[in-house]
Amino acid sequence: MSKKVVLAYSGGLDTSVAIQWLKEQGYSVIACCLDVGEGKDLDFIKDKALKIGAEKSYMIDAQDEFAEEFALTALQSHALYEGKYPLISALSRPLIAKKLVEVAEKEGASAVAHGCTGKGNDQVRFEVSIKALNPDLEVLAPVREWSWSREEEIDYASSRGIPVPINLDNPFSIDQNLWGRSNECGVLEDPWAAPPEEAYELTQALEKTPDQPELIEIEFEKGVPVALNNESLGLAKLIAKLNTIAGKHGVGRIDHIENRLIGIKSREVYECPAAATLLKAHKELEDITLVKEVAHFKPVIEQKITELIYNGLWFSPLTPALKGFLNETQKYVTGTIRVKLFKGNAIVEGRKSPYSLYNEKLATYTKEDAFNHQSSVGFIELWGLPTTVHSAIHQKGKVNA
Amino acid sequence: MSKKVVLAYSGGLDTSVAIQWLKEQGYSVIACCLDVGEGKDLDFIKDKALKIGAEKSYMIDAQDEFAEEFALTALQSHALYEGKYPLISALSRPLIAKKLVEVAEKEGASAVAHGCTGKGNDQVRFEVSIKALNPDLEVLAPVREWSWSREEEIDYASSRGIPVPINLDNPFSIDQNLWGRSNECGVLEDPWAAPPEEAYELTQALEKTPDQPELIEIEFEKGVPVALNNESLGLAKLIAKLNTIAGKHGVGRIDHIENRLIGIKSREVYECPAAATLLKAHKELEDITLVKEVAHFKPVIEQKITELIYNGLWFSPLTPALKGFLNETQKYVTGTIRVKLFKGNAIVEGRKSPYSLYNEKLATYTKEDAFNHQSSVGFIELWGLPTTVHSAIHQKGKVNA
Amino acid sequence: MSKKVVLAYSGGLDTSVAIQWLKEQGYSVIACCLDVGEGKDLDFIKDKALKIGAEKSYMIDAQDEFAEEFALTALQSHALYEGKYPLISALSRPLIAKKLVEVAEKEGASAVAHGCTGKGNDQVRFEVSIKALNPDLEVLAPVREWSWSREEEIDYASSRGIPVPINLDNPFSIDQNLWGRSNECGVLEDPWAAPPEEAYELTQALEKTPDQPELIEIEFEKGVPVALNNESLGLAKLIAKLNTIAGKHGVGRIDHIENRLIGIKSREVYECPAAATLLKAHKELEDITLVKEVAHFKPVIEQKITELIYNGLWFSPLTPALKGFLNETQKYVTGTIRVKLFKGNAIVEGRKSPYSLYNEKLATYTKEDAFNHQSSVGFIELWGLPTTVHSAIHQKGKVNA
Amino acid sequence: MSKKVVLAYSGGLDTSVAIQWLKEQGYSVIACCLDVGEGKDLDFIKDKALKIGAEKSYMIDAQDEFAEEFALTALQSHALYEGKYPLISALSRPLIAKKLVEVAEKEGASAVAHGCTGKGNDQVRFEVSIKALNPDLEVLAPVREWSWSREEEIDYASSRGIPVPINLDNPFSIDQNLWGRSNECGVLEDPWAAPPEEAYELTQALEKTPDQPELIEIEFEKGVPVALNNESLGLAKLIAKLNTIAGKHGVGRIDHIENRLIGIKSREVYECPAAATLLKAHKELEDITLVKEVAHFKPVIEQKITELIYNGLWFSPLTPALKGFLNETQKYVTGTIRVKLFKGNAIVEGRKSPYSLYNEKLATYTKEDAFNHQSSVGFIELWGLPTTVHSAIHQKGKVNA
Repeated sequence: MSKKVVLAYSGGLDTSVAIQWLKEQGYSVIACCLDVGEGKDLDFIKDKALKIGAEKSYMIDAQDEFAEEFALTALQSHALYEGKYPLISALSRPLIAKKLVEVAEKEGASAVAHGCTGKGNDQVRFEVSIKALNPDLEVLAPVREWSWSREEEIDYASSRGIPVPINLDNPFSIDQNLWGRSNECGVLEDPWAAPPEEAYELTQALEKTPDQPELIEIEFEKGVPVALNNESLGLAKLIAKLNTIAGKHGVGRIDHIENRLIGIKSREVYECPAAATLLKAHKELEDITLVKEVAHFKPVIEQKITELIYNGLWFSPLTPALKGFLNETQKYVTGTIRVKLFKGNAIVEGRKSPYSLYNEKLATYTKEDAFNHQSSVGFIELWGLPTTVHSAIHQKGKVNA
Repeated sequence: MSKKVVLAYSGGLDTSVAIQWLKEQGYSVIACCLDVGEGKDLDFIKDKALKIGAEKSYMIDAQDEFAEEFALTALQSHALYEGKYPLISALSRPLIAKKLVEVAEKEGASAVAHGCTGKGNDQVRFEVSIKALNPDLEVLAPVREWSWSREEEIDYASSRGIPVPINLDNPFSIDQNLWGRSNECGVLEDPWAAPPEEAYELTQALEKTPDQPELIEIEFEKGVPVALNNESLGLAKLIAKLNTIAGKHGVGRIDHIENRLIGIKSREVYECPAAATLLKAHKELEDITLVKEVAHFKPVIEQKITELIYNGLWFSPLTPALKGFLNETQKYVTGTIRVKLFKGNAIVEGRKSPYSLYNEKLATYTKEDAFNHQSSVGFIELWGLPTTVHSAIHQKGKVNA
Repeated sequence: MSKKVVLAYSGGLDTSVAIQWLKEQGYSVIACCLDVGEGKDLDFIKDKALKIGAEKSYMIDAQDEFAEEFALTALQSHALYEGKYPLISALSRPLIAKKLVEVAEKEGASAVAHGCTGKGNDQVRFEVSIKALNPDLEVLAPVREWSWSREEEIDYASSRGIPVPINLDNPFSIDQNLWGRSNECGVLEDPWAAPPEEAYELTQALEKTPDQPELIEIEFEKGVPVALNNESLGLAKLIAKLNTIAGKHGVGRIDHIENRLIGIKSREVYECPAAATLLKAHKELEDITLVKEVAHFKPVIEQKITELIYNGLWFSPLTPALKGFLNETQKYVTGTIRVKLFKGNAIVEGRKSPYSLYNEKLATYTKEDAFNHQSSVGFIELWGLPTTVHSAIHQKGKVNA
Repeated sequence: MSKKVVLAYSGGLDTSVAIQWLKEQGYSVIACCLDVGEGKDLDFIKDKALKIGAEKSYMIDAQDEFAEEFALTALQSHALYEGKYPLISALSRPLIAKKLVEVAEKEGASAVAHGCTGKGNDQVRFEVSIKALNPDLEVLAPVREWSWSREEEIDYASSRGIPVPINLDNPFSIDQNLWGRSNECGVLEDPWAAPPEEAYELTQALEKTPDQPELIEIEFEKGVPVALNNESLGLAKLIAKLNTIAGKHGVGRIDHIENRLIGIKSREVYECPAAATLLKAHKELEDITLVKEVAHFKPVIEQKITELIYNGLWFSPLTPALKGFLNETQKYVTGTIRVKLFKGNAIVEGRKSPYSLYNEKLATYTKEDAFNHQSSVGFIELWGLPTTVHSAIHQKGKVNA
């Protein structure tokens, strides 16, 4: 009986060829395709795997799990790698790894396989996640291993009857899920050149966005977006809807030269209309509901979670510890944010919360009570004391001179 | 002979009344007005002080010093307090304090005075700075001390012949310099309400900005902006010019509910067209010229400098230490950034640098040399090892079951 | 009916005088004395309050709560302020504040009072804690308010029949609880002079400690010390016992010039035999049970908790968030540590844990499996890549020259 | 003409065999041995290389450079990896790499070689450093490459006439320099067992240390130790002398289970009498000469430098930036520290400095001036305001109930 391998299958040329290649290595291949909101025809992909030679083919709807566990963590962490990249692919990789391992354990497979090359971050995210979830599974990376040129790969495909897409000269390499769409490749490599308009799909060019702003209201409960324009929605649906609305106004384009984990700089173009809008709205709600000490320390946690996810360590024991912190901070992040979408901007215009630490009554209270002359005088005296003492010691001569 | 006091004079009602009030306390008053790019008629203000009763009146042009020392530090630190506020007033306070102390030492004054109330951050910034520069000087805060109502203040002014402005019902409290304009007050206090259009002055409303984008090029040398659209300019002039250009496109409006040092949340509206544009451009130039370790650690330094400046500790000995770090990182931040200004957006479209760590030749080099199969395999194996070992220990039973 | 105040009563001169002084201000005084392991005769103190004039007197045994909530948090956080001070008094203040507020709410008091002066940290800890727990309670600080000289205080006491201790020339100011003993005052103020032997009470001078080492074993379960030398003990009892054993060997003397919150440097002498021993043992158990990422990030959390507690912010909403992180990390901190106590040293000689990530089997496993030539080669290549690229760009000329 | 390689030669079996092995690969071998204070007979080693077959043999005295650049940075950074390991070998590796590159450039060699295996940190430190200094040099790691068993290596040596040491059953693997001595190996691997006495060489067992304490005085100028017991000494000599004095009292033994960069935990035994004493003394001098803000932020920089050095990134551009910070902080770290060495303890008993921010005069000054009732009252009110407001909002019902 042949060894079984579970392959993360996308329907593209690389993983299609991988099915055949793995069979030739003596494996029985189980294809596994996840729906994390990439907007492809997944039933077609599921069937394609079988046609090419997979023994079995899974199509798993993981949109809710992706939204509620992965995207939500990124949202509440205000996760922007290097201040710019909202962790789109980095969020789906651990979820895909988890599903691959589940299928492998159910099917009694001894290995799992992914279609990443040796130059990117995703290979790290897949392999570390899989090892974390089941250290006994072997991980295969056919594309990295065969290291063919594009021509060699096409020759192999043709000789085995694997369909080769006609638009092979598409210069882009795309990954997409609910949290956004990433795009890298040849034409983007000159950092002095602006990305071509064809690089974008989820967002309108600013020149074509509506000339009227659109006001939306997002409601949060304990840090979770629960309603859009007064309509209660599950998180996955809310994100999908917001992608359409905010994308129409050109919100969420990102052009980023980033430091990959594996040591090189790469240029990436991202689109994330919903993520960009939600990240702003959530932060503004925190601005009125978190006390200063929490607001000022939370970014340290945020940066660490972001780095951890980017670097493929979602399943490290550090993640639940960081989430232990995060969860505590979201208790009172409840309220409504009004956002104006217009010409690529998502402008927060209004915020309200039953737990607002900023309100008229309080302002009056503090005016009368706390802000008398003496409080500030005493505060300033002690706040500046170390600096004053330092000056007194080090400027002795100077002052008297 | 009467004691001398040097007063930070703005020309407004508060500090005009303070001249008289200080005289009644037995002081001889030396007014001191700084030009840090606020765009007022400063000669008029200088004369006004004398008319009201100051013994002497200074008008000091500090635009270059403000730009080259204070704004530049903020730029290179990517200083945004709580991720939003670019430290406009917080940057001018230590410079004004420095000039007040210099004048006080020159004139043999025993005290300096400022016009801040007891509710804001600026009182802290003035007083800690003055004490740091000369611990022997007394600091007076007449407005905080007399604690009059608006009516009482006007009565006092009228009875002493001090001119009372006619637009006293102006609901805003403004401070402006080269780095931007800040605006707080009554009408802004409802956080659910958008700021009224009258709150803004440096920036066009998005609805009225040009329908054609404008492309600009900013050139940096060792982290310093030195030319705009190929015209070499001193920093103060470059900022002033960019304020006009970017302001026309509505760039740099900020609506921020922030945590003041003295413990309350306040709502502020800022405009900073040049700062917003330069901050983006500088960051993008760093993205291609700094190695990953520097890029990832620098934000820790940036956050500390930002906090220090916001909290009035510019003259703490911590500042030169942080700048010691900062200066080293700017050595190779040389190059040109192309920015598209359009409908409130400052979009970096192109970057180039003689020190770029991202370029074609290198990409080719790394492709051939570094990114073979084995490098990534080995890297991932050791990178994920702690997580793998943790799983092997903690999932012993599970995996075999 | 007179207003009621609950006074934190220690039995010393200051708070004894405060009972009378508060009565003269029109208050009915309820004395409240906590047992947090200070080793005093608390029944005597309880009675003394009544004799001096308190209307009621509480003596509350809070040793277990102190140990299990406050000392344990400090232990698991490896809390050492400025790397030296294990937060002795800083830990008891919030607990005392909590009890004062509980008594005040039960008795319908409108105010609580403490005996701190205006120069220390403890006034901050008491007042911020009380305000956090019940913002409506007034806080009184009689000693800070009356600001008498020692002589004036004694005159007042004598005239009201309040007993004045005979050893008033005792130069030390002491505070003690289970987690240690702190000592500040006059004779310690010269930082070039060693503290006199009389400053210490819980620890033997090194010159007098036993000439034979003593080996002890401490058992932890999920980060909590649960047994000492194979005897299961509640945490309060375990700490008390360990104070005796480790104190005999001179463990835990600290001589610290520290930065107080209120802006001055002060010199303090601490003794904490149990805390010093437990802190070392707990850290070593973490060294074998935590993965690297957790071990390297936890100190950031530790430093923040330490700072928060020192600065009187135990009841800030930041504390539960930090504890949310902390709790997650303690899940597997289970095992036994063997410590050699000898001549002031607490030397960890052995560690074992069912969850050890360091063990023979694993060493063998990793040797065979992970550490082949290629893994390290690939790792090093990518690890050093940013530095290599930086050199390649910046040393172009040099290398070929 | 054969290719040239510069080999880091230690005189031990591994690098002796490497000379022969490299020759058989077609290299002409230049041996290079550095004196960084390891206390070996280096002339003997230099000659041995030639006898075994090296074409040339260098012996470079690098003690001063090691002390003044590498050990001093570690001292001023209070560098203790994971709170325990003072970076002994991690400090010498970049210096050795630098000398190897210098010799290679001078001799026109195309490669350098080191004797590390594939399981440790040192291979990373060597290779990243060499690539940083000259990206064109090839790096060879013969021991990692041949991956022989001990027996195979001895067979190879015997067959080539390379002398095999008689004490090959020595279970320890030692590295030593001025900053200390590290020791790993077989017998140490059981973490429950104490290290055997034979593992130590620089320090007396506590049981055998003198029964009289020894008082020493260390003088610092701008953060640099310049005199010991009033004798001015160069840093290398001062460290060497202090190793003898403090070692006699058993100071500086460390038993550490640490996380290596390459992902495993290892157990190491270190001895560092001078380093342990200097680290304590330097920190105490900073305690009286640095203001609070600097003292509280410097540990962030310290931890980063420590991590960087441990991880082999000494020549990263991040290092000079961190040193830019560090240097600024050392300006006033001038003064004298008195240390009592006794039974394994290095106890700081006295500190004095012309720049002390803690002194009698100041204490009096602040008592009279700063610490009046009102300063603290105002400070506490504003310090605790966020927490108070949070409580007021969240406990509304509770308090009135």
